[in-house]
Amino acid sequence: MASKFLLLALLAITSSIALASDPSSLQDFCVADAKNSVLVNGLVCKDPKLAEANDFFFSGLHLAGNTSNAVGSRVTLVNVAQIAGLNTLGISIARIDYAPWGINPPHTHPRASEILTVLEGSLKVGFVTSNPENRLITKVLEKGDVFVFPVGLVHFQQNVGYGNAVAIAALSSQNPGVITIANAVFGSKPDISADILAKAFQVEKNTVYNIQSKF
Amino acid sequence: MASKFLLLALLAITSSIALASDPSSLQDFCVADAKNSVLVNGLVCKDPKLAEANDFFFSGLHLAGNTSNAVGSRVTLVNVAQIAGLNTLGISIARIDYAPWGINPPHTHPRASEILTVLEGSLKVGFVTSNPENRLITKVLEKGDVFVFPVGLVHFQQNVGYGNAVAIAALSSQNPGVITIANAVFGSKPDISADILAKAFQVEKNTVYNIQSKF
Amino acid sequence: MASKFLLLALLAITSSIALASDPSSLQDFCVADAKNSVLVNGLVCKDPKLAEANDFFFSGLHLAGNTSNAVGSRVTLVNVAQIAGLNTLGISIARIDYAPWGINPPHTHPRASEILTVLEGSLKVGFVTSNPENRLITKVLEKGDVFVFPVGLVHFQQNVGYGNAVAIAALSSQNPGVITIANAVFGSKPDISADILAKAFQVEKNTVYNIQSKF
Amino acid sequence: MASKFLLLALLAITSSIALASDPSSLQDFCVADAKNSVLVNGLVCKDPKLAEANDFFFSGLHLAGNTSNAVGSRVTLVNVAQIAGLNTLGISIARIDYAPWGINPPHTHPRASEILTVLEGSLKVGFVTSNPENRLITKVLEKGDVFVFPVGLVHFQQNVGYGNAVAIAALSSQNPGVITIANAVFGSKPDISADILAKAFQVEKNTVYNIQSKF
Amino acid sequence: MASKFLLLALLAITSSIALASDPSSLQDFCVADAKNSVLVNGLVCKDPKLAEANDFFFSGLHLAGNTSNAVGSRVTLVNVAQIAGLNTLGISIARIDYAPWGINPPHTHPRASEILTVLEGSLKVGFVTSNPENRLITKVLEKGDVFVFPVGLVHFQQNVGYGNAVAIAALSSQNPGVITIANAVFGSKPDISADILAKAFQVEKNTVYNIQSKF
Amino acid sequence: MASKFLLLALLAITSSIALASDPSSLQDFCVADAKNSVLVNGLVCKDPKLAEANDFFFSGLHLAGNTSNAVGSRVTLVNVAQIAGLNTLGISIARIDYAPWGINPPHTHPRASEILTVLEGSLKVGFVTSNPENRLITKVLEKGDVFVFPVGLVHFQQNVGYGNAVAIAALSSQNPGVITIANAVFGSKPDISADILAKAFQVEKNTVYNIQSKF
Repeated sequence: MASKFLLLALLAITSSIALASDPSSLQDFCVADAKNSVLVNGLVCKDPKLAEANDFFFSGLHLAGNTSNAVGSRVTLVNVAQIAGLNTLGISIARIDYAPWGINPPHTHPRASEILTVLEGSLKVGFVTSNPENRLITKVLEKGDVFVFPVGLVHFQQNVGYGNAVAIAALSSQNPGVITIANAVFGSKPDISADILAKAFQVEKNTVYNIQSKF
Repeated sequence: MASKFLLLALLAITSSIALASDPSSLQDFCVADAKNSVLVNGLVCKDPKLAEANDFFFSGLHLAGNTSNAVGSRVTLVNVAQIAGLNTLGISIARIDYAPWGINPPHTHPRASEILTVLEGSLKVGFVTSNPENRLITKVLEKGDVFVFPVGLVHFQQNVGYGNAVAIAALSSQNPGVITIANAVFGSKPDISADILAKAFQVEKNTVYNIQSKF
Repeated sequence: MASKFLLLALLAITSSIALASDPSSLQDFCVADAKNSVLVNGLVCKDPKLAEANDFFFSGLHLAGNTSNAVGSRVTLVNVAQIAGLNTLGISIARIDYAPWGINPPHTHPRASEILTVLEGSLKVGFVTSNPENRLITKVLEKGDVFVFPVGLVHFQQNVGYGNAVAIAALSSQNPGVITIANAVFGSKPDISADILAKAFQVEKNTVYNIQSKF
Repeated sequence: MASKFLLLALLAITSSIALASDPSSLQDFCVADAKNSVLVNGLVCKDPKLAEANDFFFSGLHLAGNTSNAVGSRVTLVNVAQIAGLNTLGISIARIDYAPWGINPPHTHPRASEILTVLEGSLKVGFVTSNPENRLITKVLEKGDVFVFPVGLVHFQQNVGYGNAVAIAALSSQNPGVITIANAVFGSKPDISADILAKAFQVEKNTVYNIQSKF
Repeated sequence: MASKFLLLALLAITSSIALASDPSSLQDFCVADAKNSVLVNGLVCKDPKLAEANDFFFSGLHLAGNTSNAVGSRVTLVNVAQIAGLNTLGISIARIDYAPWGINPPHTHPRASEILTVLEGSLKVGFVTSNPENRLITKVLEKGDVFVFPVGLVHFQQNVGYGNAVAIAALSSQNPGVITIANAVFGSKPDISADILAKAFQVEKNTVYNIQSKF
Repeated sequence: MASKFLLLALLAITSSIALASDPSSLQDFCVADAKNSVLVNGLVCKDPKLAEANDFFFSGLHLAGNTSNAVGSRVTLVNVAQIAGLNTLGISIARIDYAPWGINPPHTHPRASEILTVLEGSLKVGFVTSNPENRLITKVLEKGDVFVFPVGLVHFQQNVGYGNAVAIAALSSQNPGVITIANAVFGSKPDISADILAKAFQVEKNTVYNIQSKF
């Protein structure tokens, strides 16, 4: 249970993220007023006269995330939920920590492209094109290498070194969203019917039940 | 092999499709000139003076698709590849046929939201929200029912009746793209390493190899 | 008076619709909260935790619309007013029924392109390019045929068969808008001055008054 | 014939224009290379190193247009066809001259909102909302008055003074497009069938033929 | 003649303004409700049933602005703050008056391109491209001349005649924003540290203090 | 001369960058074909079948930039010019190195918002709001701190520690553009007239000539 929670949290944070284009700004900035009960596409703004430096600020991205979980990685998100000033600005970032051989499992960002920079370690990264090709484009990255994941495509990273790895990922939305494939498909609440997944993945229903029990 | 090909074709066509917002038009229309060697975001246009009714036309959506394949469904796409006049217009459609208990397997559209209408039969449909909730929102649809799949989210349909089912899906892009989860994750060319998928889905490597052999 | 009302209702529903590109989503979905007193570009959202399948659902598109009116057609709209979940998603659809020789009169959609599919019957369709060409691009469609109307252009359909005709139209906005030319120009409230319309259409003022009396 | 030509020319130029939002720029500027045979959404660019002041320049907007035509007005357009540097910038303008009691007949701009400023004279202006309301919002403007026409809506101006009138209209697209209602509906090439127009406007076919003969 | 000159001058006020692309409309119009306490990207709307002609109207652009100030120019803005109906429409205008040899000092518009028309007088105008070129593109304009300033670039105007000058500037946003370089850099509240500006402009700190004292 | 070149190069690279929203993708990716003679908004694409991992890759961001120049900083850009695969994806990044007390001088990004993360050292950062407020929002950042610069606003950074400082900046455009204020205003080619700058900054012409001689 705890590990499931950790995994979900981990995935929620996501790692490398691909993103799209948010609508343009109509004023200098629109600092999110997260406590307002009115909900819109994005977030409503606080009075611009009350905006202050802390609304554009986040602290702590130098701290390593805890990778003691099933996938051996941790994503620390810095999007509009962490920095209210990102509202309407179309960008966000994240730090990803990887234990040795840890992975950031296959996932998509429905609203953003992603550009990932390796700060430490070696990462095997890849993304898969859409139908009908499903071509895997993959590369091993070293410290200082940069790689791009186009918006909406399935992508992943794996630490292929013997030490920890760290990356910074920037994404083209204030709220890119993360869909971790395994969690969305085998860990939804409630479950997707096993007969659907058995046919989709061409496995026995028992295999589906088994995977579903892990998420 | 043949079934794999059929499945890929089927999935490539996709079924119900969710889509996003294409850039706005800058002229009345920009009929795609698919034979031009210059490639751009979208497609270059033919001379507007040479545009004719057939550039905005497609025939044959009343014909049932062949559902004799592993998933028991067939998607007939009508996007900018079929109607050149859709270029720059931000919309496309598709017909989906389902054999009894056939499924349109879990997939995403990276560039479009989708609105699906049931013409015949009964369909169980659903989509899953992004992390950390992964909530499944699902419903059984009958003839004349309409359902919406938001852009980029994983969704599926299953024929839950004893006869064939047919649906029309409209998508908010001239080229929504389809990522069939099983094909992208377990059927990419080349394969994603089994150790990555084993850890991502928390299964044995042999289970991964087994699923990969089907795609 | 009744016929005027019917016509207006009919036209309001519109038929085939051409549409543009809505702003992108900034979250998985933003189900419209139509009862909220705060009005924005589009609609404010309800709490996403309260979103449910019915927010993405509409029933009844298999039912024929009543075509007993002056133009002999009926449009059944399914946009954000009918499906709250369409808010921010950039798409909508409509069913159009045509009595024999009924028309969906010349109209524009200020915010959407349209892709129309004939489910039953034969339709003559057309759209007119903008100045200075004003070229009519027209075609007769049969069952299973698909046709596209680019955003903002004047277009129409006419049932040219002896039985009823039915079409499904998808549009590239959550709220495409419909401007029925005759109603906007000759049926506005209050009327556009007769001297303006007489000069614009190069007719006598009495002809203008006569047409205005019908709308 | 000549008057028809003049009218078309006049209308093509349009007057007051309402417009929408062009895609964003991806470089400082993209001066249109109108002679390039490659056609895209908008226009391809010339080498930016060859861009010069004249690419951003137009001369002659102080000159009165010739209003000796059927509607008594003349629109002088300054869009991407006149200033190549407007390509990708989402804006254009026009000068409109009105003879006494001349009109800029009802029209729409499929791709732009318009803001009109009266330089000389008195103008009655108005626009009509979409279905089902078709509400006319109208006002008489004097020198120095400004009025807005939202994108895609039918609008018009009439000189209601005894002298000439002049206005400047700015539009939110590099190529707003103009659809003059009378020309698009009664003057298309080829004609829209008289039976369609007779039913749409609820007049006799002979009335339709009569109006069509003027355009 | 003089009054016409004045009118022209009045309209120019603005400065020259370059602008970008606002998000698309999702309804006919969304008249800003400036008194609403809820703040969003742009502005919330008033009830469309209560919209009236005055919401789309502004008066007084024929009046010359007072140019008795340090730079010898005055910009009269007409954006969404002056015309509530401009909300969501992506356009605005301004009148600029220039005393003899007055300038509209170097500035940028973060959210709009600008198209400027000279109503009276002679203006030297120019804009500078971004790094690494920093090329000045400049021209002297006479009455009736039109010039374009691409979004976000530094630009300026100078009255190079012996009389007053007047221009009308249209901008591609409802709220283009103006960043006057001297005011933003040397007149911010609080001041930017003199050591930063001394190094940036390669001058002595005393020179910085001296300039700062003027703003 | 050499130092001027270095400074320009330095500034061109820029440092922290603020950015806007690029148009959406219409296919999985559109790898820039920089050698193609056809120029468009953004760049034309190479054949997607020829796309390979290296098209999405850049190496060397772990290497410190040379800060031996007049401002004591160096920006290493990674945008569409360095990674062709960034074309149409709306994102880019940069590394910025600062010598002790080095500055990234006041600049704007006309097409992007920026989110900056401090990897090493202490930075004083700030941005200034647009007219009429010109409010400076400023903060001192330490290692692991993140700060946001909204699109189009003037901003800067200064190393306020005794060692070197390093930051990673992500921007919301494939080609954000950099306008270094001092270079654009005092270093344009050709120069902006000294009388314009003297009036704009309220200094003697000799002061203008002196600053211009440095750029």
